[in-house]
Amino acid sequence: MTQIYVIGLGPGNTDQRTFEAQKALEEVTDIVGYGPYVERVDLPEHIRRHGSDNRVEIERAQHALRLAEEGRIVGVVSGGDAGVFGMASALFEAIEYGDPQWRNIEITVIPGITAVLAASARIGAPLGADFCVISLSDNLKPWDVVCRRVEMAAEAGFIIALYNPRSKSRPWQLGEAFGHLRPILPDETPVIFARAIGREDERLTYTDLAHADAEEVDMSTLVLIGNEYTRIIERENGQAWVYTLRKVTH
Amino acid sequence: MTQIYVIGLGPGNTDQRTFEAQKALEEVTDIVGYGPYVERVDLPEHIRRHGSDNRVEIERAQHALRLAEEGRIVGVVSGGDAGVFGMASALFEAIEYGDPQWRNIEITVIPGITAVLAASARIGAPLGADFCVISLSDNLKPWDVVCRRVEMAAEAGFIIALYNPRSKSRPWQLGEAFGHLRPILPDETPVIFARAIGREDERLTYTDLAHADAEEVDMSTLVLIGNEYTRIIERENGQAWVYTLRKVTH
Repeated sequence: MTQIYVIGLGPGNTDQRTFEAQKALEEVTDIVGYGPYVERVDLPEHIRRHGSDNRVEIERAQHALRLAEEGRIVGVVSGGDAGVFGMASALFEAIEYGDPQWRNIEITVIPGITAVLAASARIGAPLGADFCVISLSDNLKPWDVVCRRVEMAAEAGFIIALYNPRSKSRPWQLGEAFGHLRPILPDETPVIFARAIGREDERLTYTDLAHADAEEVDMSTLVLIGNEYTRIIERENGQAWVYTLRKVTH
Repeated sequence: MTQIYVIGLGPGNTDQRTFEAQKALEEVTDIVGYGPYVERVDLPEHIRRHGSDNRVEIERAQHALRLAEEGRIVGVVSGGDAGVFGMASALFEAIEYGDPQWRNIEITVIPGITAVLAASARIGAPLGADFCVISLSDNLKPWDVVCRRVEMAAEAGFIIALYNPRSKSRPWQLGEAFGHLRPILPDETPVIFARAIGREDERLTYTDLAHADAEEVDMSTLVLIGNEYTRIIERENGQAWVYTLRKVTH
């Protein structure tokens, strides 16, 4: 039986990996993924590593499927959870439109701690209510779809998590998203910037929507926007917790 | 330093727990939570267990805070992720409105694999696009808020995950939610029922919105509703994968 494990590595901190993910990593002969994720995995030297560039997800998935056909035990890795803007969807797309034999490959998707969960835990409990997760990247969807989703999420009262908020080729999108949110949400709505959570260069800050500055954000940042029930608890040590009340009155 | 760990236990399968969660469990002297979760934890006999009933989250949080004040090392546990309809928000609410001294307690929230991630991984990659997470419970929010969020999420093209879809006291809500979705989404929209993922009594089925029957669902089920890009890959063994295309055209 040929086998692919699609493995969510979790955030940077390997302690936030699951036992199931670790066991799968110890079973693979080959590891396929975006270069930085492949390098992050602490595997023995004899494991073959196939790192590739960003934005070649389908080719990478096809490569993994061909390796599995050859009898290799393949780990396809993503940061966070592979099902949340990671490799899982690309792999199934490659199967659907690819060699019918690929449907006989055993695929095991192993969930991981995705960025929004790691970031929320780090600052308190901002997800204490209904929430939504939106990628601001317009590589694969029209920008007006992104804007409509951001606006409707705010109007519906969701906590909003923004993935891929900014990149060198798209420096303007987060600022424009804030522009769409400001007429809908109060100025004092808490906004959290959670960068590289669990890694050594972690940086966690919060502000409010009136003062949120997209220039402070890079591609490794998860942006969280609260709702009217999101609260800040100040502490004597200068740190603070951000959480969202569970009770909604209207 | 007094310490509380708020620990997401992940789904039923302990292999889907993180290393960080396991380490924290091995450090606690007391464990506080909803009875079934407290019982699920495989801890040595000398650990004090404080299981309580459903719907007493604030009292439970206050109990944990008082134990921490006494110098106990307290683990507050939730299934899945404690920040997603779990104990984390209740704990911070108890702190904000409670004894000011409680703000000096060290609180470490440890994220876990929440149900929507476990369910998605089990069936493929249905979350391959923007998604939202909604609790159908009206214990803490008006039912019309729930309905408005469900409708707006569908109109915006989100994949929708419904937590707490049904209980003995609320047997009608999921059926009504489907009723709100049917005028908005096509009949053939995939609907997944993922019950007790990772446990021995796991049951995973899928249907479409026209045929989705709320009677098949209980409180342990996570309901996932696809969007127009969600696809089903049939396999010769009779199983199928469900995934969502990453590319959005309009």
